[in-house]
Amino acid sequence: MDIDLDAPGRQVGSVRFAHSLDNDAWGADLVPIISIRGGDGPVVLAEAGNHGDEYEGMITLLELARSIDPATLRGQLILLPAVNAPAARAGRRCSPVDGLNYNRCFPGDFHGTLSRQIAAFLYHGLMPRADIFLDLHSGGSSLEIMPSNTVEVAEDPAQTRANLDGAQAFGASHAVFVNNLGEPRTATAAASRRGLVTIGTEMMGGGFVSPEALATCKRGVRNVLMHFGLIDGVPERAGDPVVLTVDRSDAYHLAPHAGVFERRVPLGTEVEAGALLGLLHDVFAPMTEPTELRAAFAGTVYALRHPAHAEAGNCCIVLAEAGGPV
Amino acid sequence: MDIDLDAPGRQVGSVRFAHSLDNDAWGADLVPIISIRGGDGPVVLAEAGNHGDEYEGMITLLELARSIDPATLRGQLILLPAVNAPAARAGRRCSPVDGLNYNRCFPGDFHGTLSRQIAAFLYHGLMPRADIFLDLHSGGSSLEIMPSNTVEVAEDPAQTRANLDGAQAFGASHAVFVNNLGEPRTATAAASRRGLVTIGTEMMGGGFVSPEALATCKRGVRNVLMHFGLIDGVPERAGDPVVLTVDRSDAYHLAPHAGVFERRVPLGTEVEAGALLGLLHDVFAPMTEPTELRAAFAGTVYALRHPAHAEAGNCCIVLAEAGGPV
Amino acid sequence: MDIDLDAPGRQVGSVRFAHSLDNDAWGADLVPIISIRGGDGPVVLAEAGNHGDEYEGMITLLELARSIDPATLRGQLILLPAVNAPAARAGRRCSPVDGLNYNRCFPGDFHGTLSRQIAAFLYHGLMPRADIFLDLHSGGSSLEIMPSNTVEVAEDPAQTRANLDGAQAFGASHAVFVNNLGEPRTATAAASRRGLVTIGTEMMGGGFVSPEALATCKRGVRNVLMHFGLIDGVPERAGDPVVLTVDRSDAYHLAPHAGVFERRVPLGTEVEAGALLGLLHDVFAPMTEPTELRAAFAGTVYALRHPAHAEAGNCCIVLAEAGGPV
Amino acid sequence: MDIDLDAPGRQVGSVRFAHSLDNDAWGADLVPIISIRGGDGPVVLAEAGNHGDEYEGMITLLELARSIDPATLRGQLILLPAVNAPAARAGRRCSPVDGLNYNRCFPGDFHGTLSRQIAAFLYHGLMPRADIFLDLHSGGSSLEIMPSNTVEVAEDPAQTRANLDGAQAFGASHAVFVNNLGEPRTATAAASRRGLVTIGTEMMGGGFVSPEALATCKRGVRNVLMHFGLIDGVPERAGDPVVLTVDRSDAYHLAPHAGVFERRVPLGTEVEAGALLGLLHDVFAPMTEPTELRAAFAGTVYALRHPAHAEAGNCCIVLAEAGGPV
Amino acid sequence: MDIDLDAPGRQVGSVRFAHSLDNDAWGADLVPIISIRGGDGPVVLAEAGNHGDEYEGMITLLELARSIDPATLRGQLILLPAVNAPAARAGRRCSPVDGLNYNRCFPGDFHGTLSRQIAAFLYHGLMPRADIFLDLHSGGSSLEIMPSNTVEVAEDPAQTRANLDGAQAFGASHAVFVNNLGEPRTATAAASRRGLVTIGTEMMGGGFVSPEALATCKRGVRNVLMHFGLIDGVPERAGDPVVLTVDRSDAYHLAPHAGVFERRVPLGTEVEAGALLGLLHDVFAPMTEPTELRAAFAGTVYALRHPAHAEAGNCCIVLAEAGGPV
Amino acid sequence: MDIDLDAPGRQVGSVRFAHSLDNDAWGADLVPIISIRGGDGPVVLAEAGNHGDEYEGMITLLELARSIDPATLRGQLILLPAVNAPAARAGRRCSPVDGLNYNRCFPGDFHGTLSRQIAAFLYHGLMPRADIFLDLHSGGSSLEIMPSNTVEVAEDPAQTRANLDGAQAFGASHAVFVNNLGEPRTATAAASRRGLVTIGTEMMGGGFVSPEALATCKRGVRNVLMHFGLIDGVPERAGDPVVLTVDRSDAYHLAPHAGVFERRVPLGTEVEAGALLGLLHDVFAPMTEPTELRAAFAGTVYALRHPAHAEAGNCCIVLAEAGGPV
Repeated sequence: MDIDLDAPGRQVGSVRFAHSLDNDAWGADLVPIISIRGGDGPVVLAEAGNHGDEYEGMITLLELARSIDPATLRGQLILLPAVNAPAARAGRRCSPVDGLNYNRCFPGDFHGTLSRQIAAFLYHGLMPRADIFLDLHSGGSSLEIMPSNTVEVAEDPAQTRANLDGAQAFGASHAVFVNNLGEPRTATAAASRRGLVTIGTEMMGGGFVSPEALATCKRGVRNVLMHFGLIDGVPERAGDPVVLTVDRSDAYHLAPHAGVFERRVPLGTEVEAGALLGLLHDVFAPMTEPTELRAAFAGTVYALRHPAHAEAGNCCIVLAEAGGPV
Repeated sequence: MDIDLDAPGRQVGSVRFAHSLDNDAWGADLVPIISIRGGDGPVVLAEAGNHGDEYEGMITLLELARSIDPATLRGQLILLPAVNAPAARAGRRCSPVDGLNYNRCFPGDFHGTLSRQIAAFLYHGLMPRADIFLDLHSGGSSLEIMPSNTVEVAEDPAQTRANLDGAQAFGASHAVFVNNLGEPRTATAAASRRGLVTIGTEMMGGGFVSPEALATCKRGVRNVLMHFGLIDGVPERAGDPVVLTVDRSDAYHLAPHAGVFERRVPLGTEVEAGALLGLLHDVFAPMTEPTELRAAFAGTVYALRHPAHAEAGNCCIVLAEAGGPV
Repeated sequence: MDIDLDAPGRQVGSVRFAHSLDNDAWGADLVPIISIRGGDGPVVLAEAGNHGDEYEGMITLLELARSIDPATLRGQLILLPAVNAPAARAGRRCSPVDGLNYNRCFPGDFHGTLSRQIAAFLYHGLMPRADIFLDLHSGGSSLEIMPSNTVEVAEDPAQTRANLDGAQAFGASHAVFVNNLGEPRTATAAASRRGLVTIGTEMMGGGFVSPEALATCKRGVRNVLMHFGLIDGVPERAGDPVVLTVDRSDAYHLAPHAGVFERRVPLGTEVEAGALLGLLHDVFAPMTEPTELRAAFAGTVYALRHPAHAEAGNCCIVLAEAGGPV
Repeated sequence: MDIDLDAPGRQVGSVRFAHSLDNDAWGADLVPIISIRGGDGPVVLAEAGNHGDEYEGMITLLELARSIDPATLRGQLILLPAVNAPAARAGRRCSPVDGLNYNRCFPGDFHGTLSRQIAAFLYHGLMPRADIFLDLHSGGSSLEIMPSNTVEVAEDPAQTRANLDGAQAFGASHAVFVNNLGEPRTATAAASRRGLVTIGTEMMGGGFVSPEALATCKRGVRNVLMHFGLIDGVPERAGDPVVLTVDRSDAYHLAPHAGVFERRVPLGTEVEAGALLGLLHDVFAPMTEPTELRAAFAGTVYALRHPAHAEAGNCCIVLAEAGGPV
Repeated sequence: MDIDLDAPGRQVGSVRFAHSLDNDAWGADLVPIISIRGGDGPVVLAEAGNHGDEYEGMITLLELARSIDPATLRGQLILLPAVNAPAARAGRRCSPVDGLNYNRCFPGDFHGTLSRQIAAFLYHGLMPRADIFLDLHSGGSSLEIMPSNTVEVAEDPAQTRANLDGAQAFGASHAVFVNNLGEPRTATAAASRRGLVTIGTEMMGGGFVSPEALATCKRGVRNVLMHFGLIDGVPERAGDPVVLTVDRSDAYHLAPHAGVFERRVPLGTEVEAGALLGLLHDVFAPMTEPTELRAAFAGTVYALRHPAHAEAGNCCIVLAEAGGPV
Repeated sequence: MDIDLDAPGRQVGSVRFAHSLDNDAWGADLVPIISIRGGDGPVVLAEAGNHGDEYEGMITLLELARSIDPATLRGQLILLPAVNAPAARAGRRCSPVDGLNYNRCFPGDFHGTLSRQIAAFLYHGLMPRADIFLDLHSGGSSLEIMPSNTVEVAEDPAQTRANLDGAQAFGASHAVFVNNLGEPRTATAAASRRGLVTIGTEMMGGGFVSPEALATCKRGVRNVLMHFGLIDGVPERAGDPVVLTVDRSDAYHLAPHAGVFERRVPLGTEVEAGALLGLLHDVFAPMTEPTELRAAFAGTVYALRHPAHAEAGNCCIVLAEAGGPV
């Protein structure tokens, strides 16, 4: 790392991860990092580009890096606007360097492939310094997700409650408990286990920048900084979020065969069990009626596959249920 | 081809294009084809999947193939719902078989690579039979385009006028003269040169199925069949389309460098020269302000880059001007 | 898994293995599974497609899945006709998803790549339920192997004896002790360690379906079900199998250089030490006599390289010795 | 070319085809060539490795190159045992350099990609010197073909007759008129147009070396040399060949969908129209009965797909009809 | 093109070549171009990056683009410092877009792949405006070439003489007639046919920037501008160049097999026929003595393979002979 | 392994590493090995081709394998001239089989991918037999490194001292303590931990064979054999080496952006802090002055990037400081 996190003011540089490639024996992968350190106060660690095709958080952190005045900041911001740098460079979910999903790499390994090295650096190098962790996701190229906060469930209900409070501080319209079917290797699961107030987002997706989701994301991050006292100002929020949960395997409605996916409901729709959610057309069997994808249970349409092109097993629709564990 | 285009009624099959590959010396690529032949009347040749990631037309033609009753049809429908079959199988714009853009392959070559063979089959085998040509595009994975008809400009103003009349028969809200900077190798340019009434569409895009554009596309194709007398019914249309033209090189606003593209105007916006249309963020230079993309001239926002990820030279915004040549 | 293994009757579905890819963030790889549960009796777990280019077992299990009547079955069949689903989809030995040989992945890892996840599911999720394990291999694209049973050697001779009895119940003409030079990571080694009666096969190969080997495979699996009392009937067998062993490193006759491999002996031939087994021709050195591949010891020709094209180190001939450890 | 075709005796070298690659700006692809020139007599041009995965001819020509004594030869042999050198190096049908099927490249182009350059060299540089052309094919990795001669149909029946006489001189059990649905770009079509006695073979295939087909190929080539007087000896033949023809599009029985192909008839079987020739199993739809592939007309099973793995459109069975044009 | 070549002063922009890719339907490849137009005088067209891994000319033209004052220039400079832009972006000889060697693409084709489009633009769009053509090559990644001028031989000896005069004006120590064995498709062959004074260079290579060759290149280009009167100054030259010729096929000493190439003579050495020039070591046959590469004729060592790794057919050494055609 | 390391005299063969690939189920990767065993004396284990594009050591060991007479040798040589055989076959730094850098794979894993298997074989199979370890590196394709010995720092200063003495025995002009920023997974770090006298080299690089470095390497290895008494003779050395150290992160001067790297100082130059070491040119921004790369501290230019083409993060210059830990 070519900046000093203990130095006051704004430091801009990068973290070096040594590699050794055919065309560069002794070089490094560079992950951009910005530290803005002001007076006493909490330390907020924020990453975007956990997946390289999720952009609202990147733009939000870039703007923050340029606009926050260290002279008036109480505490410290440590910002990684493109934490999964090779994926962000390529505009892809997973790292083209090792093919891994960085968000399944925690707690990481300094001797592992690049994604694991970055995770280890976050886990061992940055999270111990921080009080609050922001992991700014969108749906990525393959999914559109209802702009919302995600909330980690912790073993200790107090931690879960703190995470939900963080989401409420951010102030998206929905706060969704998503545990990825019990997955412990995500950045937010790791941060929550370490005791940081852990705040996630899903900000639309589809591989493009949604103007509405971007505005929500910018506002939410500033809300968090205000809430925890790092900057002055009155958070903009519209009441408490609706709380939802995704924790059933059959919430994920998968394509039973390859085809062209046609959505039949918009994000946020509340549906009954058995409702028609989408069609799957087989262009190479013109006389065959399209396959109907129907709701496995009553819930809210939380995510939709973005690309029409689908292979067998691809996730087409995700339903969330009302309520949460706390 | 394993169906007989001269046979009455509904014929469903495929056209075989011989190939010779490492793992299949004597097999064929199969392009699905449907003929529905009724009583006397004009012959409508319709293709979708010219680009394999443009779906509204595919679904429209599949539904048509199943629902039109040959007993009441006046004339013939020849439908190719996935004309660029390898691209449609892969959900990609260009053919994974030869890397070519089928829509730059006309008049084709029976001894060329697959895309050229398919073009030659359309040009020499199907277009001579047809009176009307429908080429149903959407914007594809990389572009969102204002749902609209495209209109070919011909040397003979009467042909241009016939093409515009066709667009009016289809009935999208806008009819746009797009000549791809004089490109003669498209399917529509070829059909228009052959004297067919040539009707193109752009139906949103972004690689997903837009419910609104799909409805427009289904309605428009039936409007055309009614207009030319193949089926009964009253076309649904909302008055004459707004006529626009894209024929300037600087209509295409390209990314001057790699970055994250943030659109700042929606499709269909009328803008002044110099108006801010989008930003290009360099995530790896956090202190650098984003590059502004501004309108080269006054016009209507006709197309927007869908993916935020952009390389230098990628097309980010296309402006159309009011009016047309006829 | 979308079926219930405890439910009676025939259940057909798939096991879901979560992945997270650029084009499908929240989808799954699907492995087909069939459970047929009848009255009391032993549980037979059978997999085919351990390698994706070995087909006789796949066809055998598909037919079994459709034809066995749960009403008359004593015990349960758990069938995975394409256990290494990505490899079977591609018709390749190794998984195109992670490049791994599934048969070197046991006991597996639920947090590993897909092949390791599937192995973990078999090892921890299915083998504990089962009494008998059938792993139906053929030689795959690169080898032709004498149709035969393979037998695992266990630390406990009683287990080894049980495995050999299983092979005799299957009833191929040969039962061959193959330990892959002590390899502990195969499916059969894992099942045998768990105490299941473990029955393997090699059913020709070369990437095609051998009608004779297919008949042997279908008959053998039914013989096993009869032998263990799951179905009625009299096993068809022609006496005890010839017992052979492959456990020497020099049993594998490798190509010393690249060339065109010409076999000079058919499968099953008994040869003396030093006998000519094949030639290796260098097409780019026309004046050079072909290299002779000669038997390292006296034995039976157990396997032959199928493709003529060989690189240095490729396995061309495998010899087995008479007899076995029990 | 680093040998002199006008020189007497045995010359062994290679033909250089200039390329210009990232890692070799000024080097060449090398195609091995052997000239054996004796006394007066006809010139026989023989190529193998037209497709790089067809081996019987390669071995035959290598042996010929080493064993023919120029002192007793009447005429000249020009031998290219690996004419499509990059494909032969890789053991693949098509050239890995340009992806082309060399056998669709005639008459070639000295300024085209490598396969076209080689074809041009044969067409313009070697065929004008030759009286007889031998093109020694097998079925390649994807097909098994009944060992037989192939015969070109020419516009002039006398040329067709000469080609058939050449096949009879070779002496395989069958002589098959195969015109690849009218394809003019093959090596044999080009040679026949130039007036050479043109003799083709198909010698099994499947990517391996068939001992029986190899013996047939070696014997046949020597038969030809005896027949045309280049060497002494009595041809070994078993009477006149059975004459067959493949010239219908529906002779090629293609897979209607992806699956595992199980052959149900051996090569050479005479079948009635409608006879069951093979099954196509869908491993991922266990409850679905396999698709039956049935004979389109009465004929002889001339070729079978070798790999069980099949994609939609892959050629599974080819039927030949009795008789021929002369 | 977004600059106007007729405008006075310094214009900096790019030429757009429309493409149509999966991820960018309507964008363009951008080739940088600079025009510096002063008072009356000749037009010099200069390109570097004809091959993307040849750097001395790129740096020379960049420096020229920034330093030449249009106010004092007599005539016009049209500079393309990275004419083969995709190759230059990748640092590769050939274009990664179409795999072609741009220097085998003249006269080009506006409807061909990108390399052919760029060639057509040079040939039809720029060469007609120019009097003098500078094509600044180095040896590229695979070759080291004696820093020198290359000279085109024209049908008309006066043109050949003019080209040689141009080389003398440039003033490298050697002027080498290189005709690439009669190749007509190079940029310099095309320019010379059009009657431009055509000046080529080879400036070391090996994929790195040679400080000495860079100095030679910068000096030479300024010498040319002085010689033809575009700028003031006295050319720096050390007498007339030594004239050499490369026009024999056996000048190119190719690797007869794969191995590690060890050069045994430096560039510029004068050698006798039969002299040892290099060794080829087979690391996988340790007991085999290395193959000796010996001079085919007496000459000067003009070029050496840079990478030690060599495949059969790779060019290892090029010899030039003394003298030239004029 | 097909040779016996305990046998006297010269044994030449290979080590087999079982793999299981789509096209070779039961073959092996072969790593060449030579044992020369004479009378009593120390055992020297020497490897080259740790990286497959570093050639001076390969040639040195090949020559040694052929020229050392076991009758006069005191002790044993175990030579692996291409230890990373797949990388050496491809002429690449990293293994094309698993993409790994073998020199980050120690202590290895017999169940890991190929590079880890080879490392485990060295670590567990060969190092326990040896007294002295020679690891003969050059800079590889991407770096030129001052011909020199590298010295491992051990926890025990006596081991460090022994390693430095080994370097002095070898006798390059410089001995450089390089710890790869604390990397424990290299071959030399592993050997030193095992207590072997561990001698490394860097012998130029750039992907070619440097005649001067090759001579240094051959002389140095023989010097070591003389020094430790295996062969007779008087070492050729020019006094004690200059001792340098590379152990700071900022010794590695990385490219801050993509561009064309122009070196401005030769290897071995002593520079002041802030001295200009190189330029980075952006060919696509012609009006932008090149970026200057300046020395982070006073030192000696130890390594330079060889290819001019550089991506952000690529290592361009490495500086060493005077002195060392012992």
